[in-house]
Amino acid sequence: MNNEELIKTVDFKKGGGLVPTIIQDFNSKEVLMMAYMNEESLKKTLQDGTTWFWSRSRNEFWNKGATSGNVQIVKNISVDCDGDTLLVEVVPKGPACHTGNITCFYRKINFEENSNE
Amino acid sequence: MNNEELIKTVDFKKGGGLVPTIIQDFNSKEVLMMAYMNEESLKKTLQDGTTWFWSRSRNEFWNKGATSGNVQIVKNISVDCDGDTLLVEVVPKGPACHTGNITCFYRKINFEENSNE
Repeated sequence: MNNEELIKTVDFKKGGGLVPTIIQDFNSKEVLMMAYMNEESLKKTLQDGTTWFWSRSRNEFWNKGATSGNVQIVKNISVDCDGDTLLVEVVPKGPACHTGNITCFYRKINFEENSNE
Repeated sequence: MNNEELIKTVDFKKGGGLVPTIIQDFNSKEVLMMAYMNEESLKKTLQDGTTWFWSRSRNEFWNKGATSGNVQIVKNISVDCDGDTLLVEVVPKGPACHTGNITCFYRKINFEENSNE
């Protein structure tokens, strides 16, 4: 799959132009955050190799880390089977979360009793 | 964080009752799929320890693997910083994807040239 094929494969219509995008650490495999891309922010991401999102609250493009320095270097981009979700593996230059946590998913419930695996 | 706190923390209003939910393999750390939970499907997931979603296309609850046998045993549930996304780590009993692929994110672009890490 190349860049052109990826852009064509993503179904931007389903979510009103926005596609949920999962950000995962390329090395640790930790899931860091979820944000939204529109077609133009996906193109910007493909062009400059750092993550670009569309901020639903500020209604503007958002180049992750442009202010904080915590940019995310893109290593892989995957699209799911029905084309409505993206997965981007990155090498982060700092915490993904505005709270300073490495990941936005820092509040967790453990179900370790579910050991029937 | 306990089950009650988790349910209170999740912002179901933002997405019209639905919260994007990332499913990750507990052991391999591979991201398997993304689906949507509403409050009731989160409660069902907490109760029986397998993943329950809300199907937007069929407009009904969807207990992953109930038909195929490819159930997902829940190990951890995390909520993100602003409460509008869930991350569920699971031990899957079979492929997550209806195509038979282990993950729904089987179509990938590599950016290995981005080596400035």
